[in-house]
Amino acid sequence: MPYNVDWMKKYRGKSRLVARPKTTRQISQILKYCNENKLPVVPQGGNTGLVGGGVPVFDEIVISTNNMNQIRSFDPVSGILTCDAGCILEVLDNYLAEQEQGYMMPLDLGAKGSCHIGGNVATNAGGLRLLRYGSLHGTVLGLEAVLPDGTILDNLSTLRKDNTGYDIKQLFIGSEGTLGVITGVSILTPPKPKAVNVAVLGVSTFQNVQKALVTSKNKLSEILSAFEFWDSDTLKLSKAHNIQGTKFPLEDNYPFYVLVEISGSNKYHDDDKLQNFLEELLANEIVKDGVVAQDETQMSTLWSLREGIPEACSKAGAVYKYDISIPLSVFYQLAEDMRNRLQSAGVFGEDNLVSNVIAYGHVGDGNLHLNIVAKSYDPKVTNLIEPFIYEWTEQHNGSISAEHGLGLMKANYLKYSKSSSMISIMKQIKQSIDPNGIMNPYKFLPTQ
Amino acid sequence: MPYNVDWMKKYRGKSRLVARPKTTRQISQILKYCNENKLPVVPQGGNTGLVGGGVPVFDEIVISTNNMNQIRSFDPVSGILTCDAGCILEVLDNYLAEQEQGYMMPLDLGAKGSCHIGGNVATNAGGLRLLRYGSLHGTVLGLEAVLPDGTILDNLSTLRKDNTGYDIKQLFIGSEGTLGVITGVSILTPPKPKAVNVAVLGVSTFQNVQKALVTSKNKLSEILSAFEFWDSDTLKLSKAHNIQGTKFPLEDNYPFYVLVEISGSNKYHDDDKLQNFLEELLANEIVKDGVVAQDETQMSTLWSLREGIPEACSKAGAVYKYDISIPLSVFYQLAEDMRNRLQSAGVFGEDNLVSNVIAYGHVGDGNLHLNIVAKSYDPKVTNLIEPFIYEWTEQHNGSISAEHGLGLMKANYLKYSKSSSMISIMKQIKQSIDPNGIMNPYKFLPTQ
Repeated sequence: MPYNVDWMKKYRGKSRLVARPKTTRQISQILKYCNENKLPVVPQGGNTGLVGGGVPVFDEIVISTNNMNQIRSFDPVSGILTCDAGCILEVLDNYLAEQEQGYMMPLDLGAKGSCHIGGNVATNAGGLRLLRYGSLHGTVLGLEAVLPDGTILDNLSTLRKDNTGYDIKQLFIGSEGTLGVITGVSILTPPKPKAVNVAVLGVSTFQNVQKALVTSKNKLSEILSAFEFWDSDTLKLSKAHNIQGTKFPLEDNYPFYVLVEISGSNKYHDDDKLQNFLEELLANEIVKDGVVAQDETQMSTLWSLREGIPEACSKAGAVYKYDISIPLSVFYQLAEDMRNRLQSAGVFGEDNLVSNVIAYGHVGDGNLHLNIVAKSYDPKVTNLIEPFIYEWTEQHNGSISAEHGLGLMKANYLKYSKSSSMISIMKQIKQSIDPNGIMNPYKFLPTQ
Repeated sequence: MPYNVDWMKKYRGKSRLVARPKTTRQISQILKYCNENKLPVVPQGGNTGLVGGGVPVFDEIVISTNNMNQIRSFDPVSGILTCDAGCILEVLDNYLAEQEQGYMMPLDLGAKGSCHIGGNVATNAGGLRLLRYGSLHGTVLGLEAVLPDGTILDNLSTLRKDNTGYDIKQLFIGSEGTLGVITGVSILTPPKPKAVNVAVLGVSTFQNVQKALVTSKNKLSEILSAFEFWDSDTLKLSKAHNIQGTKFPLEDNYPFYVLVEISGSNKYHDDDKLQNFLEELLANEIVKDGVVAQDETQMSTLWSLREGIPEACSKAGAVYKYDISIPLSVFYQLAEDMRNRLQSAGVFGEDNLVSNVIAYGHVGDGNLHLNIVAKSYDPKVTNLIEPFIYEWTEQHNGSISAEHGLGLMKANYLKYSKSSSMISIMKQIKQSIDPNGIMNPYKFLPTQ
């Protein structure tokens, strides 16, 4: 049963039952029954998660939102969209683009073609547009959700502002299916920019990556919509597993690459700002070389350099994916420390247990994706990486999960990012809302 | 004792004890003692609230954050500020403006010279910049708070992204002191715009106000930073109680006025966009007349038209202040229906019980401030307004509190904006975190 396995084939359950309800009422009936009979359940959206949060661990019943995919309403004056939880992110984005005054979803991520908006909200997905449009805690205006006892929380507000009582929906944003099933989402969508452009820059030091970020805030300001980075090892890996035939526009090799995207309402003004930005970077020797897309095709090509990384990784072997928030001053040090550690242990190098340690991610948000490519998921390798990486992150005041969530992978490592009093109040809330513990067990909160 | 009375002099308690702690630890000790002895407390910031949420009802102990006013840290690369809860909003804004690369607070409101950031967070304050920078649910990155039993929740994260566990701080944002005392705030601040300008427009119909809003999203887009409105009765009242000697720039009278603010990084580009916007409005006869500020003084003058309204009101008599979110299609109808209702009851008119019903507010956010000026707070008037206004709001799918909160004023009206299942889960959370009910009693959640 495909519902048992995550897309990386890293997590595998043994469920024999999947429910595919079409209505909120059906979900309510299913949960009420499961709760009364103490049957554990796993809510599942597009099954694109990276931490094993959306598949069963044992024989939990899967509740899929596949059949809940209707757009409920859209208001073209306010830009507020209301839809079922099972709507696919890209489908929503296309729907908004087709409106007379075009709009777009405030989030975008690699899995957009499969992931569900309900899953996005349940995991507080971040992605490529967070830098500009903020997190789902700000853009989600209302939720409809079903509690474990079958109660339907009808909080599907379409108001921008509403200060009446505790903001209960916020508890569900990022709760990874442990408090109930999200069935409907109301979200504020921004107007689709009339002009978009992309530049890729070659940079010699990580300090200069930081300087480029500060310069972009200063010179691009309100039109800056993405600031992504990857290192030279990432590019090497992408080239080696170049599935899509991507061309690599910069001739020389650089230790670091930065992708800057701008989105605005006036192409003439935006190009002018981009020009000023690039001139300042070159004049101050912050970047060595850069290329600006000349048309939509080149824009896609430049974005594919960044968006193709996860796929290139997964072609290269078994991938250990880490998703860390850390202060920029120590942002890249983790990659170097990890390479040194694996080197010292004699497991790192071509044809060795670990072939690649690559770093990329949303540097504009302080979010590093550290991917470690191994021959296979090997306990020897795992034990060299974990809990080292979590301890390192704790020591540098980071978060062990910036945007991927905890799931099964990191439930027992929560203590590296949250104090015991924080974990205690989380457990108290879980206990209060799901006293029988039927919702997505063994995940999210520590079991040890 | 001034701590007993709110600034409107509408709510008055009889407390004989105020605590003015200097540290989070002291607050922890006070709460622990109060909780063990079941002594109710009221957290109080700048005491600028509008719904009686920050003053005692009876003899509750006041815990003031007046003495907790230190800035803890600021990172000029990320723009993340960490400070004590008792810092005054304007002080923080000035501090950020003085940084080498200027920053500013993501919120701004009339009470900025007195209100505390802790109170802003506890009430989820909205204000003038929400349209551009979003709500505190998106910009607050971390909180330090003390629970009723004295437990210190150390969640003062300075990370933009952190998906590790339930986002507990969100429960405290807008909880109005009913779950604990907020003692520290970490917040993402945007770069201070290099260019700001303001225009005031005269508009004939409310439908054209809506059209102007859609046009502003389209033409001003990423530089739009405020879209405010007031009606002709508001202007009449402001002129009659013109304390600051404000000049009124438009010659004719119009039924509606709109203030548009733009904030960007390039004055030349921004002026160009503003010009295009105004031309489109005039060409399509959406506005009748308009004036654009030519310098900083004129900008302040135009803003004072909007910001002076509450003060003019309070000079005119006893003010019933309502703060409603409603869909734009029925936005102004409430003012008309209210006038008709008071007229029919024979209480409305010059020298009558009610002299003014004025409408103004953050129309760009769907947030109406309806102020009713009366000779005094008279039960006859009150009963004509309430619950009529709440029923009206419910019928039009609005919220009875967009940004002011519930406090004492609206605790028992919560049912007009939230379902019984929503109220029930709120009570469950309150009971779980504050089982002795010592935190800000009689407010926020319904007692009837």
